[in-house]
Amino acid sequence: MILDICLSPALYPFYKKENDTVVVVDIFRASTTLCAALSNGASAIIPIADIESARKYKSEGYLVGAERNTRKVDFADFGNSPFEYTEDKVSGKEVVFTTTNGTRAIEASKEGRQLYIGAFSNIDAVVNSCLTGSERVVVLCAGWNNRVNIEDTLFTGAFAEKFIREAGATPGSDGVDMARGLWNLAKKNPLEFVKTSDHYQRLVNNGAEGDAAFCFEENTVSVVPWFDKSEGKLRIR
Amino acid sequence: MILDICLSPALYPFYKKENDTVVVVDIFRASTTLCAALSNGASAIIPIADIESARKYKSEGYLVGAERNTRKVDFADFGNSPFEYTEDKVSGKEVVFTTTNGTRAIEASKEGRQLYIGAFSNIDAVVNSCLTGSERVVVLCAGWNNRVNIEDTLFTGAFAEKFIREAGATPGSDGVDMARGLWNLAKKNPLEFVKTSDHYQRLVNNGAEGDAAFCFEENTVSVVPWFDKSEGKLRIR
Repeated sequence: MILDICLSPALYPFYKKENDTVVVVDIFRASTTLCAALSNGASAIIPIADIESARKYKSEGYLVGAERNTRKVDFADFGNSPFEYTEDKVSGKEVVFTTTNGTRAIEASKEGRQLYIGAFSNIDAVVNSCLTGSERVVVLCAGWNNRVNIEDTLFTGAFAEKFIREAGATPGSDGVDMARGLWNLAKKNPLEFVKTSDHYQRLVNNGAEGDAAFCFEENTVSVVPWFDKSEGKLRIR
Repeated sequence: MILDICLSPALYPFYKKENDTVVVVDIFRASTTLCAALSNGASAIIPIADIESARKYKSEGYLVGAERNTRKVDFADFGNSPFEYTEDKVSGKEVVFTTTNGTRAIEASKEGRQLYIGAFSNIDAVVNSCLTGSERVVVLCAGWNNRVNIEDTLFTGAFAEKFIREAGATPGSDGVDMARGLWNLAKKNPLEFVKTSDHYQRLVNNGAEGDAAFCFEENTVSVVPWFDKSEGKLRIR
C-alpha cells in the first residue's frame, strides 16, 4: 500500500489518483466536531460550502452548524465546537454543517473511492478503516484558506506513524517523512508545540482554549465519518 | 518585518502580497546551479518555461541549459548540474535556462517587488539582501510538480533561522515554524535526512550523488541572483 500526505486542498489536484481513499483532516475543529456529532447519535451530517445554502436549510427546519473565521454564524444552531453537539441536541437528527476550511477539503476530494474524516478523536478507528478498500491512502489537510497549518500536519504525521506500522505502507512522496518528523518533535506535548500558531491564537481569542486541548486527545470516540456519495452526506456505517 | 514560507508554487497565490520580496528555492538543483553559473561569470541567465523556446534560442546561438526529470535535454549545452557551468564555458555569456520546477516558481512570483534566487550556496548573502527593500519576505519552494519536497523545505527552515535572528522578523504563518522544526531535526546532517526522498533517489539513479552533497554546502558563493523584470533576466548587481 501507498500512503501520501497533502498539506492543502489547493494541492490536492497534484496528489489525486483514481480509487484513492482520502482522509480529510481539520483538527481545529471541523473533523473533531464531526466525530463528536456522529458519535453522539446524529443520523447524518450534510456538509455544504456556503452560508447562503446553510440559511436555506435552516429555514426548512434543519439543525445547522456554521462557522466562519472561528466564530458561530449568527443564525446557526451550533458553531464549530465539539462540545456543542451533545446527544440531547443531535441524536437521531441530520445536521447541516459548514466551516471555513473543512468543507472545502471535502469538496476537493469527494470524487475519490472513499472519503473518511480523521481526527485525533478517532485516529485508531480511521487508521483501521483505511487498511482495506484501496491500495493508496491520501491524508488531506484542510489547512487555513489553502495555506498549510501545523495542527493538521501533526495529525498526518501521527496517522502516518500508525498506518505505516499497521499496513506496512510505503510513503508516496516527501510530505510523509516531513509530517512524521514534525510529529516526532511534537508528540510529547502537541498542544505546547502549536501554541504559537495562528489558529491556536484565534481559538484562545474566541474563548475556545478548551476545544484546542480536546482536539489533541486521542481515541475519545470510535466512529469513522464516511461520505456517502449517493446522498452527499456523512454517516457512520 | 514579516517572514513567510510557501511550500509549493501552486500555493503561492494564497501567500502573495504586493511589494513582497520573494526568494525562489530549488535546492536540487536549479537554484544551486544558477548561483554557480553567475558566480562563474555568466553575464545573465534567461529563465524560460518550455523546451521549444529553449530550442529556438539554441538555434540563434545562445548557450542553453535545459533539464527535464533530472536529465539534460538532448540539444542543450548543459543540464542542471552546478559543476557544468564552469568559468571557461559561461564567463561573459548569457545562458538560457529551463528546468522542471525552478522556472515554474520564478514564473509564479516574478511580479513581486523583487525576486532573488536562494540556495545553501549563497544562504548568508541572500539573507543579507532581504534585510532591506520590503517589509515582507516570502521564501517560495519550487517543489516537485507542485508537490512539496523535503530539500527545499529544509532550506526555508535554515533561511528562517538566520533571517529571524538577523532581522527580528515575525512568522507570517505556520509554515515558518514547521520548516524551522524540520531544519533543526536535520541540520546536523541534512544529506542523511533526505536520503530516502524521491528527488535524492532520482539524482543517485542519474549519477548525480555528488551534486546532492554540494547542494547542501553553505556559502560556497557570495552572489545573489536577482530577477531584472525589465529584461526578464537573472543577473547579479
